[in-house]
Amino acid sequence: MTAEKSCDPSVNEMLQIAKKKGISTVWDRYRAQLPQCGFGESGLCCRNCVMGPCRIDPFGDGPDKGICGATADTIVARNLNRYIAAGAASHSGHAKHLAHVLKKVSAGKAADYSVRDEAKLVAVARRLGFETGGLTVSEVAGRVADAALAEFSEREEPLAWVESTLTGGRLAKFKELGVMPSGIDAAISEILQRTTMGVDADPVNNLLGGIKGSLADYAGCHLGTDLSDILFGTPMPVFSEANMGVLKEKFVNIALHGHNPVVSEMILAAAKEDAVLDQAKEAGAEGINLVGICCTGNELLMRHGVQALTHSVSQEMPILTGALDAIIVDYQCVYPSLTTVAQCYGTKVVTTMGIAKIPGAVHVEIDEENALVKAREIIALAIERFKARKDAPTFIPDVKSSVVAGFSTEAIVGALAKLNAQNPLKPLIDSIIDGNIQGVVLFAGCNNVKVPQDSNYLAMVKELAKRDVLMLATGCGAGALARHGFLTPEATEEYAGPGLKAVLTAIGMANGLGKPLPPVLHIGSCVDNSRAVDIAVALANTLGVDIKELPVAASAPEYMHEKAIAIGTWAISLGIPTHLGVVPPVVGSSLVTSVLTQGAEDILGGYFIVETDPVKAAEALFAVIQKRRGGLNLATRAW
Amino acid sequence: MTAEKSCDPSVNEMLQIAKKKGISTVWDRYRAQLPQCGFGESGLCCRNCVMGPCRIDPFGDGPDKGICGATADTIVARNLNRYIAAGAASHSGHAKHLAHVLKKVSAGKAADYSVRDEAKLVAVARRLGFETGGLTVSEVAGRVADAALAEFSEREEPLAWVESTLTGGRLAKFKELGVMPSGIDAAISEILQRTTMGVDADPVNNLLGGIKGSLADYAGCHLGTDLSDILFGTPMPVFSEANMGVLKEKFVNIALHGHNPVVSEMILAAAKEDAVLDQAKEAGAEGINLVGICCTGNELLMRHGVQALTHSVSQEMPILTGALDAIIVDYQCVYPSLTTVAQCYGTKVVTTMGIAKIPGAVHVEIDEENALVKAREIIALAIERFKARKDAPTFIPDVKSSVVAGFSTEAIVGALAKLNAQNPLKPLIDSIIDGNIQGVVLFAGCNNVKVPQDSNYLAMVKELAKRDVLMLATGCGAGALARHGFLTPEATEEYAGPGLKAVLTAIGMANGLGKPLPPVLHIGSCVDNSRAVDIAVALANTLGVDIKELPVAASAPEYMHEKAIAIGTWAISLGIPTHLGVVPPVVGSSLVTSVLTQGAEDILGGYFIVETDPVKAAEALFAVIQKRRGGLNLATRAW
Repeated sequence: MTAEKSCDPSVNEMLQIAKKKGISTVWDRYRAQLPQCGFGESGLCCRNCVMGPCRIDPFGDGPDKGICGATADTIVARNLNRYIAAGAASHSGHAKHLAHVLKKVSAGKAADYSVRDEAKLVAVARRLGFETGGLTVSEVAGRVADAALAEFSEREEPLAWVESTLTGGRLAKFKELGVMPSGIDAAISEILQRTTMGVDADPVNNLLGGIKGSLADYAGCHLGTDLSDILFGTPMPVFSEANMGVLKEKFVNIALHGHNPVVSEMILAAAKEDAVLDQAKEAGAEGINLVGICCTGNELLMRHGVQALTHSVSQEMPILTGALDAIIVDYQCVYPSLTTVAQCYGTKVVTTMGIAKIPGAVHVEIDEENALVKAREIIALAIERFKARKDAPTFIPDVKSSVVAGFSTEAIVGALAKLNAQNPLKPLIDSIIDGNIQGVVLFAGCNNVKVPQDSNYLAMVKELAKRDVLMLATGCGAGALARHGFLTPEATEEYAGPGLKAVLTAIGMANGLGKPLPPVLHIGSCVDNSRAVDIAVALANTLGVDIKELPVAASAPEYMHEKAIAIGTWAISLGIPTHLGVVPPVVGSSLVTSVLTQGAEDILGGYFIVETDPVKAAEALFAVIQKRRGGLNLATRAW
Repeated sequence: MTAEKSCDPSVNEMLQIAKKKGISTVWDRYRAQLPQCGFGESGLCCRNCVMGPCRIDPFGDGPDKGICGATADTIVARNLNRYIAAGAASHSGHAKHLAHVLKKVSAGKAADYSVRDEAKLVAVARRLGFETGGLTVSEVAGRVADAALAEFSEREEPLAWVESTLTGGRLAKFKELGVMPSGIDAAISEILQRTTMGVDADPVNNLLGGIKGSLADYAGCHLGTDLSDILFGTPMPVFSEANMGVLKEKFVNIALHGHNPVVSEMILAAAKEDAVLDQAKEAGAEGINLVGICCTGNELLMRHGVQALTHSVSQEMPILTGALDAIIVDYQCVYPSLTTVAQCYGTKVVTTMGIAKIPGAVHVEIDEENALVKAREIIALAIERFKARKDAPTFIPDVKSSVVAGFSTEAIVGALAKLNAQNPLKPLIDSIIDGNIQGVVLFAGCNNVKVPQDSNYLAMVKELAKRDVLMLATGCGAGALARHGFLTPEATEEYAGPGLKAVLTAIGMANGLGKPLPPVLHIGSCVDNSRAVDIAVALANTLGVDIKELPVAASAPEYMHEKAIAIGTWAISLGIPTHLGVVPPVVGSSLVTSVLTQGAEDILGGYFIVETDPVKAAEALFAVIQKRRGGLNLATRAW
């Protein structure tokens, strides 16, 4: 926990190798950037026209306005909005990609893909209000794909993936504020226009635009989850392992990195083919070992139990084992530095998407119509590298943790149904009412080189678990907890308070696990934060309250991506108080800062809690839960 | 020309007042920003995630990579792409707004608006391939509006407003490069995704994405022109005046500022109503004097001969006359500082669009269904202010120039048809062939506080006019030339070379003007750069060549807006060498700089010429023209 760079022992082992070999890593590049620009850090730098760049002096000794007259408040709000727009474009771009695949599946034009979860397809179609009786799977898939693609265009009706997935209270609030997006791509473009020189100078009006953009991001996330489940299956609990010890010296080790399962599912399918396995064996390997990085890894872990290699800030490290033969990437959160480090080892870095190339990588474009063929081609590259390295020593850290993952909403409801088949949510609600579960906290987001890797997650989870707070986790947050053994029944035994332990044990026993569920349920990748919303909405609707009254909160203790800012903004808009463990680039405006951290509570119910000390952050989230419990006339507890 | 801040005498007069009264202006704010951040100026600052901000040391003494490993090339290309995306969002947002108005007009839901130019409507519909026979105007309008709105959504077919308006050679090139956008908003979102942390690290691939985004911008511009013409009329030559001397002490002076005629056309209509005029007279005014700022001003000047007050960097100045009663703004290029300066004078600043508010302004929201009613309400605010100031002294500079404007493509073709009704382009082509017209240069873009206002325009136009180069102008560039008397027959007499003078005189005489046309033809607002493309495409198709072979070039000698970067990028993509008189924020990457200024010529035919000295810039453009003339086997000339 006092580690300077990472709390992960395998990362620290690799850092020794990097040091010895003189290989530069993300931590070296971070140190080289210090001190970082204070104007940028506080949001006070504007580059939105070529009269600038302009900077506002936060101490009042220099300029208080940009050349056009934009104030600190305006500049900070505009910069925040552009982060949100980029986040929304990323999540929804991922979702749009899936919608095209589903569309092609429905039209019989993507032979390598199929609808693997017909029940989910029908459930989504019905949620959208479609009649499905008498229709073939392809027909239903076509309608859902069309509805998904229609979300991106501007239109008269509110976004179906917002309207059909939230509480009535939230929808009424969004209509009242005028923040219902009229189309995902339309909302993104609107932000870019309003933040350009000479358009929206009103900081609060800008923030409303940002909220609208964040709801477009929410729709993109939910679409991403739904369409992935339809195409590749809805996750159900699986056992697996995480951390660099999952690499196998004698195998062709292939890491799948990025976010969208569209590529990795095909690599997985190809890697199971006899011909491909034979190829690996002919090269002298015992087999092919697929492992995951970041959210592509989460998608594979959730659906197939594929082992998680590492996450986020440590993505360069596995190359230093010498045992990683290829990293196959789709898009988002992929460090361009991978190719530089890989060059020292011969590890193949393979890019697969036209919008995401990296100098020094091999590019093998994958589309819906050639996916398996290309997947085989890519695996052949990894095998080729294995052949070249097989007699060389490897340095695989003997570090891995067991993991229970796969907690989709459907899986959680299914597990609860073992306690109460009629009303599966009742055991959970009863536990919240009687205080065995004090509330629920969602951990989301990334690692950030500014925080010793994983440290905030670990400290917060320990504090909250012992106070009977049930936790959910997504993305690299879930990955951090996975690598440190927090997604296990044993973690419940070790860290959970008595109430939480009792509930998790009851559910675990009823499901034949013979042990409690983990104290943190891995609900998926970043887009799968939508699963947490589904659970919150189900709780709220069952209780007859709005989300903003529930004893729930969220935390992004080590976030770094624009996507995380978009998610955080929709979380507070949905009425969920959200902790940020890294100071967001808004502190240059006391107005924007106070709206986001205070005023938002009155308007939205949710607000940001910025706290870099993880114990204090846990305390703040526990206080939120207690306040919300009080609001529902439930018994409260002191910290 | 040696003016420090502005070459405009009325601006310099107002600056004396500002100095005396201690009122801060854009030039003061610029001075306060000096020295500007060199990282931002060179494009070497990345704020696309919260691990940053990162900076690359251009001198090689500090970091050569961002924390994620992004190089200078990657960072510069990404930043450029985000400028292009914001520019495209602005132009196309403006166009989308017009499409919604046209749609409501077609549905009978926007009583204050109508199709004023049925011939243009039919021409656009036919260009799109629609049968119009037997359809009512409303029906055709509905189809064109639907086609326009469909441009924003992702779809299979290329953008209709790209496909139907360019040469076959250009379309083939864009398909070859994979840069045909699949939807305007889709292309904008794609740029945001590809430029976020961990997506596209390949600088050249990023630049291709930027070109795609710029073509989305081009579609937005052309849509903006077409829909404005349909709704408000296609401009035909008009006489008017420009500069602050157009204010009238005894009148209620109202400036219309921004870009979209949707608001200003309603103010214009309301200002002509008897009841409204009576209101003004009751307040003691002789009448209502509407004047224009920036492109809203250009739209009104082009269609109605409304006088142009000022442009871009001098937009605060007219307030200092004391005679300006209200500034009514829609969006884009509106300095938030207007309200600060206006406060000293009581001038009303009225915002009208939900996405464009300004602290300190009165907000009166205008939509398609309440436009005239709200227009009257806004004029009443101006009258109220007139009442309060009517006995106070005013300081209106006695500076104005006469202007001939209104040169839409249709107007230019119409004027040429007076020389050759069968083949109107022939006189122009013959003049180019025989060298009386050496070539055509389009002046576009803004004023930028970094350049003494108008100085680059004036110097370049003088150099090119005397060398028989015909010029077109849009936006604040056209405004600059208008204020300095270059949009007049007299300017042809004074500055044009003998060949150009002969041609312009022949056209002027044939059109009953009794004088030559101006040496620079005002073709409209920024979106109307599309009119220049129409002319180039018509020339290319008539000559049987591609745009990239024509002796044409463009210049944005004092640009500053993200929109200008988007326009410049599509201009080079269309094969038009384009001069930039302000160094764009890309010089931190020698790769990006060399692709844009050199490599692009091979790939696209167009490329950027960066030159801050206007005479050298004119020389460079003349050299382009000579090279292109040589390519067509036309006689060439030395500088």
